[in-house]
Parts: sequence; C-alpha cells; structure tokens
Amino acid sequence: MTSTPSMASSSLSAPEKLSIKRQVFHGTFVHCKTLTDLEILHDTYMFVDEHGVIVKILSGDGTGDARDLREDVGELGWDADVDDEREIFEYVGSSKDEHGEHGEERFFFPGFIEKEKKKKITNPINKLLDTHIHAPQYPNSGLFGSSTLLNWLNTYTFPLEASLSALPKARAIYSHVIQRTLSHGTTTAAYYATIHVESTNLLAGLCLQKGQRALVGRCCMDSDSGANLDYYRDDNPTQSLERTKECISHCENIDPDRRLITPILTPRFAPSCTPQLMGSLGKIAREKDLPIQTHISENRSEIQWVKELFPECNSYTDVYDKYSCLTPKTILAHAVHIGEDEAALIRERGSGIAHCPVSNSALTSGMARVRWMIDRGLNVGLGTDVSGGFSASVLAAAREASCVSRCVAAGIGASENTNGKERDTLSVPEVLYLATRGGAKVVGMEDKIGGFEVGKVWDAQLIGLGKPLMHRKEGEWEGQEETHEVEVSQTGPVDIFGWENWDEKVAKWVFNGDDRNTMKVWVNGRLVHQRRN
Amino acid sequence: MTSTPSMASSSLSAPEKLSIKRQVFHGTFVHCKTLTDLEILHDTYMFVDEHGVIVKILSGDGTGDARDLREDVGELGWDADVDDEREIFEYVGSSKDEHGEHGEERFFFPGFIEKEKKKKITNPINKLLDTHIHAPQYPNSGLFGSSTLLNWLNTYTFPLEASLSALPKARAIYSHVIQRTLSHGTTTAAYYATIHVESTNLLAGLCLQKGQRALVGRCCMDSDSGANLDYYRDDNPTQSLERTKECISHCENIDPDRRLITPILTPRFAPSCTPQLMGSLGKIAREKDLPIQTHISENRSEIQWVKELFPECNSYTDVYDKYSCLTPKTILAHAVHIGEDEAALIRERGSGIAHCPVSNSALTSGMARVRWMIDRGLNVGLGTDVSGGFSASVLAAAREASCVSRCVAAGIGASENTNGKERDTLSVPEVLYLATRGGAKVVGMEDKIGGFEVGKVWDAQLIGLGKPLMHRKEGEWEGQEETHEVEVSQTGPVDIFGWENWDEKVAKWVFNGDDRNTMKVWVNGRLVHQRRN
Repeated sequence: MTSTPSMASSSLSAPEKLSIKRQVFHGTFVHCKTLTDLEILHDTYMFVDEHGVIVKILSGDGTGDARDLREDVGELGWDADVDDEREIFEYVGSSKDEHGEHGEERFFFPGFIEKEKKKKITNPINKLLDTHIHAPQYPNSGLFGSSTLLNWLNTYTFPLEASLSALPKARAIYSHVIQRTLSHGTTTAAYYATIHVESTNLLAGLCLQKGQRALVGRCCMDSDSGANLDYYRDDNPTQSLERTKECISHCENIDPDRRLITPILTPRFAPSCTPQLMGSLGKIAREKDLPIQTHISENRSEIQWVKELFPECNSYTDVYDKYSCLTPKTILAHAVHIGEDEAALIRERGSGIAHCPVSNSALTSGMARVRWMIDRGLNVGLGTDVSGGFSASVLAAAREASCVSRCVAAGIGASENTNGKERDTLSVPEVLYLATRGGAKVVGMEDKIGGFEVGKVWDAQLIGLGKPLMHRKEGEWEGQEETHEVEVSQTGPVDIFGWENWDEKVAKWVFNGDDRNTMKVWVNGRLVHQRRN
Repeated sequence: MTSTPSMASSSLSAPEKLSIKRQVFHGTFVHCKTLTDLEILHDTYMFVDEHGVIVKILSGDGTGDARDLREDVGELGWDADVDDEREIFEYVGSSKDEHGEHGEERFFFPGFIEKEKKKKITNPINKLLDTHIHAPQYPNSGLFGSSTLLNWLNTYTFPLEASLSALPKARAIYSHVIQRTLSHGTTTAAYYATIHVESTNLLAGLCLQKGQRALVGRCCMDSDSGANLDYYRDDNPTQSLERTKECISHCENIDPDRRLITPILTPRFAPSCTPQLMGSLGKIAREKDLPIQTHISENRSEIQWVKELFPECNSYTDVYDKYSCLTPKTILAHAVHIGEDEAALIRERGSGIAHCPVSNSALTSGMARVRWMIDRGLNVGLGTDVSGGFSASVLAAAREASCVSRCVAAGIGASENTNGKERDTLSVPEVLYLATRGGAKVVGMEDKIGGFEVGKVWDAQLIGLGKPLMHRKEGEWEGQEETHEVEVSQTGPVDIFGWENWDEKVAKWVFNGDDRNTMKVWVNGRLVHQRRN
C-alpha cells in the first residue's frame, strides 16, 4: 500500500519517498516512559506497517546476533520473504572490530538489504516536537538586538511577516524552514504562519509535501489596540474569521484525515485580537474539534498592557478563558509570569504550555518556572519560538531548558535572593520528556505520537554519535592521536571516548549534539530527512 | 625564516605546518575596537610577516578588485615576486555570479595561488580566547547530572583527572582537546592540567606541537581540608612546589621565549590549598613574571566553606590577596557571587575574571553579573570551563553570556524581584569583545593579541557563512527550493538569506554558528586548523 500526498511535487518524485514499505527497525531505542524515566531498549526490533504504525515490538536474544525474522513477520501476516519489503537497521554490540582487534566498544548499523556495516553508534530516539515556531520569522534567527517583546515585534517581526505576502519569497523561506527543522529532528511542528491566506496554505502544502507533521495556523490579528501595524492586520473580526476558514478548508482538502496536517486557530496574542474574534475562533475550535495556539504572559510590559486592554478580566489567562480560547487543545506559549490562579485555571481547562527557554532568554522575558508548572499538573512541551528564539533546534531548546531551570534553582546570582530550590533543576530525562511526550500532550496527540509503543506511529530519528575515540589495550585506555584532526573536522561536537554508559551517551547528545547527529528522520513511517556525507 | 617547534612530531611533518611564509590576507575583517564598537573592515589587506606579526594594513580601492601588491610588498622589503611566498584570500563583493545571472550577493575567497574561486561568505574575525578550561575533564563534557560544585568535583572530576596519570590516556585526550578547541576557533587557552608532572608536560608539548597558544598549569592541591581526595592530591606544600617547578622548567625548555607556551601557577581553589603553598606560588609568580589561575566565588556552599577554612580573611578574594595570589596576571574563574569589597580589591590588584556562563548554568552556580563587573572596572574574558561547562566552544560561551545577561536583566522570572536592569544585557559586540580583547587582557597578552593592528600577531580564524539562500529577481526575493535539502545537510545552522547587513551576519554567526563555520585557524601566522569538506 502506497501513500501519496496529494501535493507531491517533482522534488519528491523519488519512489522511496512516496511509498512506505513495511519496515523492521533493529537496534537500541531510547524514549521517555514517564517524566523521570528514560527507557533504553537494547537489541530490540520494532515492526512498522505500511501505514507507518508500530505493530509489534520484540526483544532480541541479548547476543546482538541478527534474529531470523521470517516467523515474526509471518505472524503479522506479512509476506515471509521480507527482504524486499523492509529496511532493517542492524545493531551489533561488540567489543571487537571486524578483525577481532582492540577492546573497543562498537555498534553497527548496517543497512539490512545492502548488508553494509557502518561504524557508528546510533540509536533511534523518538521524535521531537516543536510546540511553538513562527515559520515566517525564520530569516530573522539571531537578530533581535537588545529588543524586548513589544518593540521586537514592530522592529524585526511584523515587517518580515508582512513581506511574506509574496509567494516566491514565502515558498523559499517555508521550504527551508521545513528542511531545517526536519534536519534537527522535528517531526511535528506547531507553526504560526502570517495573516496571508495564500502563503499560509502554501506552508500547509509544503509540510504535506515534505512529510512533516504540522499544525498550521494563519495569524489572526484584528485589533486596533496598537498591537498590530496598520499595514499588517486583519481589517475586522469578520474578515479575520473568513480568511481563517479559507485556510481550514484548504487543509481539509489536502489532508482530509489530518494524517499530517491539522489546521490550528491562531489568535496571535490578546493585545492583537478583539474579544469578538477570540470568541468566534473558540466557537470554531469546538465545532470542528480544532486546536488553538496563542501567546501568554511572556513579558511584564505585555502583561501590564493586557490588564489595561481587558479591565473586565482577572488575569491574562482569564482573557482567553472569558473569550472561549482556553480548551484542552489550546497551546499557550511562554507563560513566564503566570500566577497561582492562572495555573489553576489552565489546569482546569486542560490547556498546555509551550515552554520556549531560548526565546525567553534572548528577548529578556524572564525565566519560566517549569518545575512549578509541572507541580501544578500543567502539561508542558518545548518550543523553539523562532525567531524570538534564535535556534530552530528542539534539542537546543531542551539544553536551554536545562540551563534555565538551573538558573531558576540557583536564584538570581546577583543577590542574596535564593528562592530557587534544588529540585527546580530539570534532568536530562525530563527535558527529553518535554521535547517528546510532553509536547505530544500539549498538541493533543498523545495517543498517536510521543513514545515507542504498539499502536503509535513511527515518527522517529536515528541518532549517530560517531565512533568511540579510545580503546582499551592491556588494561590502559589509548587513542589514535593521528586521526583526530580529520575526525574533528567531520563529526559533530559529541565525543564518545568508549567508557560511557548509555545514560551518559544520551546526556552527551543532549548537551553537545546538533543536526550532524540526526542521521535519519521518519514521520508516519516515511523517511523524510537523511543526512548527507 | 622558518619557525620549527622543538617538539614537532611526525604527525606534523607536512612542511606547510612547520614553516611560516610571509602572507597577505585580503577580505572583510571583523574585530572589536572597544567593548561596544565592532569594527568591520571591507576590502582590506593585512600583511603578516614570517614571524606571524601584522606589519601593514591597507584598504582596497573599494571596488573589490584585486590590488597589485608588488609595490606594497616592496615597501616592506619583501621580495617583489611574492607569488611563492604568500597566501592571499581574495575577497570579491559582487551582485552577480560568474555567469552574470541573479541579483545575488556573493563573496569570493579564491586561493590566490590556485586562482580557484569558492562561493562562500567568509570573514576573518580575530581569535577567540578561552580563559578557563580544564583539559583533562574534556571526556566528561555534558556529564554532571544534577550535581553542584563540591559533589561534582568528587563524583565526576577527580576520578577522571586522577586517571590521567596514565600517559597514553592523557596523550589521546589532550591531543583531542587541542584539536577540538582549535576547530572551535580557540587560538589561546588557559589550561588547567592535573597534578601529574609528566602528563602536564605532555599537554604543554602537544600545544606547542599542534600550534595552539596556551597557558599550561599543573593543578596545585596540597590541603587536607577535605577538598582533595586522598588518592588525588599533593602530599605537602614542598612537594607541590617542587612538582610545579618541574613543569615550569619543562615549558622553559621547549619554548624559552614563550612564543606559544607559558607556564601558569595554578592553586586549584582556596579549599584545596594551604596558605603556605599559595604564598610560595605567589612568590614564584613575581620572581618569574608568571601568571596565576584559580577559581573564586563559584557557589554559595563553597563560599561558606572558604569562610570557615580561612576565618582570618575578610572574604574569598581576601584569601588570595593575603596569600600573595592576587596579581595583575591572575585569572579568577567565575566570581559569580563576589561583593563590592571584593570587586574593589580585584580592581586594585588588576586581576582578571574568567566568566564561565555555561558552567555556571550547568552546575547551578548562579548568574554572574558581568555588566556590574565591567562597571567596576574589572577585566573580563570568557571561559568554557570544560567540563563544568559542557561545551568546548568559546562561541557557545559568548552566546550563553548573552542569554544569561538577559536573564540577569529580567530579574528572576519566578518572582516580583526585578533587580535586573535593561543595561545588564550584553550585546553582540560586547560578548565578542569578552571572547577576544577582553580575554587578551585577562591573560595579560593585550599587547600581543586580541585585535587586528600593526604589531599584533596573526592569531585569527576565517569564518564562512555559506552562500545566500535567496536572490532578487525583478524586485522579488526568490530561492531555489530544490537545493535546500542537500544544503541543510552540508552546512551549519547559520542561514544567510541575502538581505542581511554585516552586523546582522555577525549576529547570526554568534547565535547559530558552530565549528562548521570556522574554516581556517591561524596562530602566530601559522595555519593550525583547516576544516575538511
């Protein structure tokens, strides 16, 4: 059975991209079972069917020897002659190289069909979710000067977004954002587009074409409060709603089953929306079972402004609640400064938080208290918030989430104020949980994605950490000095020396890994990115 | 004239590494003139003599056309037939490609001799200095769990350092650290080694061999306060001093003029040293005009402990002052929690601060107030503090310095405490200043390195930011969608779209750049790293 996206273009005409074969993945699998429990499964087989769904998980016999899979696939009703139908990453744990020399730790991932052996430590980890990213802002990554939210919007953001009414520009930028985020291992992204119908629809089409799972939202911004620029806003609530419906229809046309693309209602943030618009969007969300995304409590001046704009509301959170936008499928970005009452209300409504630590640091917004949120039962995922955040990598967001949590824990260094507590620090398993299963909950897809289990779809990436640098010889660790210069030129900055355990390998990936370690990426079982060289 | 390091090994037998030719560099140069002033020189020529010293700087005629250099080199007394003697990076700013098509911004850096043209945006920026890095801890990069300073030392750090008594292990690790840091553009590093004489000497020799400017210090730690482990310490002050002298002698033997290698006195930190040892080290420092490096005020528990261990001293800073270790050539790492009196004392003594933001975040130490330090006239440079810091990249440290300064500016997000001020934020020029000229002052080499001026040595890196992704066609910006997949696989995460000005290009490099952008690195005029592929 072949799945062909309706908008497939010539650039994706290669058959391996358009068809999904039944696949068996073999190797070490890492995923988060719970917030604190990182499960590492060695010598394991995952069977993924032609719909991209994991249908069976088996353990090997522990020797690392290849298992004869004919019986296993037979039980699944798959053709027993599987060689032509599958792709297998063979994992062989060995303390010897192929010549039996060196007591070096080695892991092989040969392509099963080609029987080729690669000297790489590789392990698939389940997919990363970006719960908050502004696709049109991508060209501004790293550009923010010393601005903070409100002047950043007017200086850097709105002019760029407005220029994406030009479709050739939008096409080039959006194509690149999707490729970039896929290369960083982002299998699902909650995208803000611009106010433009056509280029928003283009973004949705490109995500489908390139195979990235996406929530795509046209930015709704109809207020004349001063939050929107005259040249970049919807004229009124009715127009904003009509434009939004056009985008929803487009998504329904190109992907009626929401296999990859889900339209998302996107009131930009309270100051840029009228109550009437927010109310209408909330109504559509309920009628069509659609998610909502917006920003909340990012910056102190913004909060003060919201208070002035909506004097009838008790809090920033209460604005969204009063105007029907707080649902179990609402993604609230930032929430840096929310109070106890707001956390309780968000919890009650079941909405989720997109924690965007890189952006919050860059725009001087403050440090969100993630442990505090988790303690209050809130669902939290990670967002890059490009281009408030300068990096499109969810891994970089996970790293910064860890760093920021430790700054929260330390209290502000400048003073004797130590209101942080040691348990405010987020561990490696915890930041990976936020990046995967936590994010899945926030985007309302926890039944489908977020971990490796039977019934979930195969959204995954293959991580390679390179060859160990050292080996044990007669009880002493040695390395091959002469090869290092070439190696540091060709590999990413993660260095495995040979004595690390798997928890340590994962930690090294979290803290020094980059897109060079993301060797392959699959969504719905389909290979959507493969690292060259 | 050829400079041959006395410890050159077979691995560096290639003649181009051992000899320095007279060189002319042509292109765009970026450096920090002052803390806030990033100077960007286009179409400029720098002439570097056979000692690696910049002897002449010229501006081109602004057209980007290659200048006839025969007269210029003649004035320097160089052979007018220079083709065989120099390497020139030719910079050509052009709005057309070689076929005259596309209104695309382009910069060429052909090798002058080979006349080959490369489609790269490249600009040399002056060298990065790492004012604080523990070479032996490198294999632990990214491994720190939820530990803080004092338990981190015992759990992760001392066992690894102790194991570097084994020379094969030390050789492999140190070789790799040097290659890695060079690949990140670190031309000067202030290294802590271990307590072992032989492997410390090995580190010094390897730095000389691989051509990295380094301050190399044997860790002095003789106290039985509990700060040192029984199996990893000097037995007494006398032994510690003797071992230290052995290391100094070795450095004096292999590089008598301190062209690259400077021994540095390294009392680890106050809790691990006796007053007698600190006093003796301070004395040697003065006698031999040697620098000192140590840690200060990193973590609140540590500060409390210092207070208990040295009740006779007024502050942590006062410990070092009382025991002769606070000199104009002292590098104090961290200084997260120092008070007004301490800042005044450090200022008075002329010592410098190695700000290590990645480490301070990772180890939950707190956030150093860099603006506050600068306001008090302190010299501040950047340190990676590997492996308290998880990244060996000074660029990553600059990025985190920026982020942390913005968290300081925002005050802690968790509370109403807003004791941060907007001016606490560090700008792009400022963090680059800390990484270059600031660091040069901290290591006492401001006359020699830190900027591009006649009389300074050529310690530099060539930064490449790739080809712009878009071009202007009939007034509209367009990109080549189909090429993106390959491009994102092969380039670093910095994306230049084509419309950025130079300040923006530099900002993009600071926030998203990595070792893939560091194409070449020179120290003392010698090419010491070149990126493959």
